[in-house]
Amino acid sequence: MSLRTSWVESANAPGCEFPLNNLPYGVFDAGQGPRLGIAIGDRVLDVAAVDHGLDAGLFAEPAWNAVMAAGPQVWAALRARLTVLLGDVAHQAAVAPHLVRLEEVTLGLPFTVSEFTDFYASRHHATNVGTMFRGPENALPPNWLSIPIGYNGRASSVVVSGTDVRRPWGQLKAPGADLPHLGPSARFDLELELGAVVGLPSAGMVSVAQADAMIFGYVLLNDWSARDIQAWEYQPLGPFQAKATATTVSPWIVTKAALEPFRVGPPARERPLLPYLREPGPMQYDIALSVGLTPEGGAETILARTNARELYYSAAQQLCHHTTSGCPMRTGDLLGSGTISGGTPDSRGSLLELSWGGAEPVRLADGTERRFLQDGDRLTLYGAAEGEGYRVGFGACTGRVLPALPQPAWTQD
Amino acid sequence: MSLRTSWVESANAPGCEFPLNNLPYGVFDAGQGPRLGIAIGDRVLDVAAVDHGLDAGLFAEPAWNAVMAAGPQVWAALRARLTVLLGDVAHQAAVAPHLVRLEEVTLGLPFTVSEFTDFYASRHHATNVGTMFRGPENALPPNWLSIPIGYNGRASSVVVSGTDVRRPWGQLKAPGADLPHLGPSARFDLELELGAVVGLPSAGMVSVAQADAMIFGYVLLNDWSARDIQAWEYQPLGPFQAKATATTVSPWIVTKAALEPFRVGPPARERPLLPYLREPGPMQYDIALSVGLTPEGGAETILARTNARELYYSAAQQLCHHTTSGCPMRTGDLLGSGTISGGTPDSRGSLLELSWGGAEPVRLADGTERRFLQDGDRLTLYGAAEGEGYRVGFGACTGRVLPALPQPAWTQD
Repeated sequence: MSLRTSWVESANAPGCEFPLNNLPYGVFDAGQGPRLGIAIGDRVLDVAAVDHGLDAGLFAEPAWNAVMAAGPQVWAALRARLTVLLGDVAHQAAVAPHLVRLEEVTLGLPFTVSEFTDFYASRHHATNVGTMFRGPENALPPNWLSIPIGYNGRASSVVVSGTDVRRPWGQLKAPGADLPHLGPSARFDLELELGAVVGLPSAGMVSVAQADAMIFGYVLLNDWSARDIQAWEYQPLGPFQAKATATTVSPWIVTKAALEPFRVGPPARERPLLPYLREPGPMQYDIALSVGLTPEGGAETILARTNARELYYSAAQQLCHHTTSGCPMRTGDLLGSGTISGGTPDSRGSLLELSWGGAEPVRLADGTERRFLQDGDRLTLYGAAEGEGYRVGFGACTGRVLPALPQPAWTQD
Repeated sequence: MSLRTSWVESANAPGCEFPLNNLPYGVFDAGQGPRLGIAIGDRVLDVAAVDHGLDAGLFAEPAWNAVMAAGPQVWAALRARLTVLLGDVAHQAAVAPHLVRLEEVTLGLPFTVSEFTDFYASRHHATNVGTMFRGPENALPPNWLSIPIGYNGRASSVVVSGTDVRRPWGQLKAPGADLPHLGPSARFDLELELGAVVGLPSAGMVSVAQADAMIFGYVLLNDWSARDIQAWEYQPLGPFQAKATATTVSPWIVTKAALEPFRVGPPARERPLLPYLREPGPMQYDIALSVGLTPEGGAETILARTNARELYYSAAQQLCHHTTSGCPMRTGDLLGSGTISGGTPDSRGSLLELSWGGAEPVRLADGTERRFLQDGDRLTLYGAAEGEGYRVGFGACTGRVLPALPQPAWTQD
């Protein structure tokens, strides 16, 4: 596939993340309250205002959930119609008045998150973290090559790119201490992930193919993590408050349709998967990912570059596994891939791995070092699939670390 | 406090679970669609239809969330008004036409569950399970005496009492096997819990007193658990599909106000809690709990009797801890206490404990034995606080085990 040209000239520019091939879904506010929008070039289209050919009720709420719930035929019809409206100059006069400059709008959460599940699907990440938490001999848990390991996260803490993130308090146990104390996390970290957005609900076990058909699209996802809280709390029932401060998603949902040309097969699997998890076709995506850290008042340093194709389990496999117990899945469920790390030190998707648990500080462009995040640090995820002469991007997924709040009186002796 | 008498005569009968002192909140359907109801004696009151003195919008949806979000003043006003309407015979003529016999209605989920968190707050339960899963020397994790350990569950699988529960499929690893297989759970189990229903939202760290003020009421809660799925999947990120089949709650939310006379202090604590978790007053409740198993076509056997006062951490402490990271809590959040077990073998709140991992089968009244649940078994939780001459009950929390579905074609080699 090659570039589809639009009469929105900026959409045809080399390197543009939002060409006509993309058409990602977001929520924008240009001063009149939140509305559904599509990014095209350096503009956002007010979808409800144009002749979209669908039931207006689908666009009534400032979240894409109604469209998501409407299913693949509506998804395809809307995409086809938008491709005509923004591709055919015959529609320019009618449509152009409903474009707003992206730089003039505020972007909101593109969908209402029903529940959030976070997985653990990058083998390099699981191996790195396992080595640090449990030692090299127990790095990869025995179930990891068979199960797309996941745990339930907290939907209420999912925020859109641009939201500041407050350093959390939590129970911490200092090395060598017998007892924990309450304090601000000193090992606050990022996790570079891809998120899958569930469009269609399910009410029983589904296959990988059915799961893939339920997925509406993908977002970038930063699952902020307090490593010191996690280390003390996570046995035996898993991460809880360490992951409950915030999860930042990109402002745009890139549709499965836009990513179709970028499907790739999985990494080599040393143990055959159980039949229910086998893929009927390529379910991974070739999406280049990176993360940058910008210190307060400083320049950005790219911490790591990796790729979504590193994932050992696809979102479709994760969603399939999520239904094995009969767990009902709903429109708006969000599935995080787990931190995506490659096999080289500069492709690790968290500071925990980049600084190897704090032992090997990362040097930034301004000469300072980071073991974990400092107050004022801005973290930004980038992601794009590269086609022939065009790019399908997610928009930046960014958030800045605010200092912890002062200690509340009731927490003191 | 003693019995408050109502002109609904059945509410004054000895042993009645729904006297005027209780007034629990539910959702009923008498053939005209779901409506908000209050249980009184053997009747349910159609709240929206009487002169409740509050904004009608609070009762427009068939879920108590709007009232829950309205806060303690509205909660108190509604309770006071209902006490007058159902206690003062002067209102009988106006109110009686809006009473329906409980036996003639279907009861629905009393509130829309935002998110579900399950805790692990019974020391005997944690010790028993820890002994079986990790051995006696590692039974109680080192953090257990400091943290109200919890994990995020799945809100979409919460169902109301009376809903059948389908035995789940899942990844299982047979003892001695190298690799797992997909199969129906052979160790499907119950968990006897109390659930706290969050009324008011929060947006930062709250104290135990503030958390207590946010709680609207309590339900009985059976967190169905597949022990064989859990044993294979739960390391390192905690239970996932083992707990995602269903969580059954009682049809009635018993309000915090109704339980006020039954507050008690905590069990002895061998390690002082961190200041933020210390209680400003009694936060546990003296609520007698039991669970019965009724085989298909057979008579019920009470498996265990225990009490909510066994809980080492109160719901207020759990909710307080839940906010330490800044995690936003919302109206409709449901917090499971964790399985409530006492110190004696007949007070254990799960078959896992009662049969000691299957090693010591439990004998039923009909002479059959149970290690774990069989298809057709009906599980029923009961709970009531006993006042002087009256009882505050939850109504039965029941569910029947249906056989696993046939194996889907796509899961076979």
